[in-house]
Amino acid sequence: MARFITIGERIHCISPSIREAMDTKNPEPILKRAKEQIDAGATYLDVNIGPAESNGEELMTWAVKLIQENFDNHPLCLDTANKKAIEAGIAVYNRSKGKPIVNSADAGDRISNIDLAAANDAIVFALCSKAGISKDNDERMAYCQEMLERGMGLGMDPADLWFDPLFLVIKGMQDKQMEVLEFIKMCADMGLNTTGGLSNISNGMPKHIRPIMDSAMVAMAMMNGLTSAIVNPCDLRLMETIKSCDIIRNDNLYADSYLEV
Amino acid sequence: MARFITIGERIHCISPSIREAMDTKNPEPILKRAKEQIDAGATYLDVNIGPAESNGEELMTWAVKLIQENFDNHPLCLDTANKKAIEAGIAVYNRSKGKPIVNSADAGDRISNIDLAAANDAIVFALCSKAGISKDNDERMAYCQEMLERGMGLGMDPADLWFDPLFLVIKGMQDKQMEVLEFIKMCADMGLNTTGGLSNISNGMPKHIRPIMDSAMVAMAMMNGLTSAIVNPCDLRLMETIKSCDIIRNDNLYADSYLEV
Repeated sequence: MARFITIGERIHCISPSIREAMDTKNPEPILKRAKEQIDAGATYLDVNIGPAESNGEELMTWAVKLIQENFDNHPLCLDTANKKAIEAGIAVYNRSKGKPIVNSADAGDRISNIDLAAANDAIVFALCSKAGISKDNDERMAYCQEMLERGMGLGMDPADLWFDPLFLVIKGMQDKQMEVLEFIKMCADMGLNTTGGLSNISNGMPKHIRPIMDSAMVAMAMMNGLTSAIVNPCDLRLMETIKSCDIIRNDNLYADSYLEV
Repeated sequence: MARFITIGERIHCISPSIREAMDTKNPEPILKRAKEQIDAGATYLDVNIGPAESNGEELMTWAVKLIQENFDNHPLCLDTANKKAIEAGIAVYNRSKGKPIVNSADAGDRISNIDLAAANDAIVFALCSKAGISKDNDERMAYCQEMLERGMGLGMDPADLWFDPLFLVIKGMQDKQMEVLEFIKMCADMGLNTTGGLSNISNGMPKHIRPIMDSAMVAMAMMNGLTSAIVNPCDLRLMETIKSCDIIRNDNLYADSYLEV
């Protein structure tokens, strides 16, 4: 029984209030979004500080300490293109509730983030792409194997590489959805962990449709063995669906109160 | 592109108003439930008259004509243990919108309902059970093969046998859910059609949970290739989920209005 893991996506510098909080080192907006997401059941919180080229080390250190000290060392996912910032964040990260996650490596320019994860005993999101979207599952699997070998060659536990097929937008790539889902099953059949930015599928859809479409997708992906996803945990319908699929998969015991915990 | 087929379950003699309508030949309650379900998007309507041992032929004839004459020959599923009643219903059934469905055969006492379907060019629900619940998928598949052979031996198109794994109640059989879902995939991989009384999984759960759990289940089952289900089409969340999975499976083209049609 391993329950599905959710990574809350709402501490992201693309949000104006979070951007301002990071620029001015104002704790309140960040603590508010951390609390909302933890209360909603997020297993991990993503901390996206953007490229952060000039002040990344200082900013990630501040954000990691701020959230972990206020929320009982809640586990975090460190999200930036600045590697030194990730290393600085890991240096102050408390592992008592779970390893840090490096977000993210791919099979192209970012492959050295696997080395970074290996050197720091961290989990790493491994995007099955190199330059642009992979054209089919053969290509996705080739990158998956490449990253798996690199990580294992550096002594990583394969369970610490979480492979991301890249969820594709339905408006424009409707005919690719089943292929992405099939790739998740290929990974699951190999015993590999998987993840992804699920809500990408509903990009551009009317706002009221997105939770409906995202929920249908997460259930289909969980059928195929998806083990985690980067989500908005404040999307109630999505979280209800994930909890229900955990019951159906027998990864959590049913009780009439299962939606409340 | 073959959209998922829903069979509306709400014209059922277990409902007091429907029971009374059938006893007194009162059209209104039946027409009301037919309209509600058709408006909600039900592809077929199930007409369950119970055992109907004394007056089954007359009752089924009346119900089939009543519904088809009022709703433009909407396709129906004839549901009773009384075979003569099913034959009487088929005799007056208008096929312009789809073949009638015989509900149901199994591999035990009810196997001759396959013969009835074959003799009348009807679809038949084929329950993969004999005496009680099958103990595993080997047993389910043995019954599936037995019924498939019987139907094909009588000249049926295999697509007209819709195999039902029997959905099992989660409260009591939580550890069997993935096995049932796997059986649906086994059937789909063979190119067979499948169906089932989906809401059985949430029997005994608090009322507010049932649409949530049923929706998670239908999405997982659709991932594995389920082609139809016997449902309450007035369950909005369930129907939204089915429509969304049809988009993800590429069985219906996405448009922003897809939930409204």
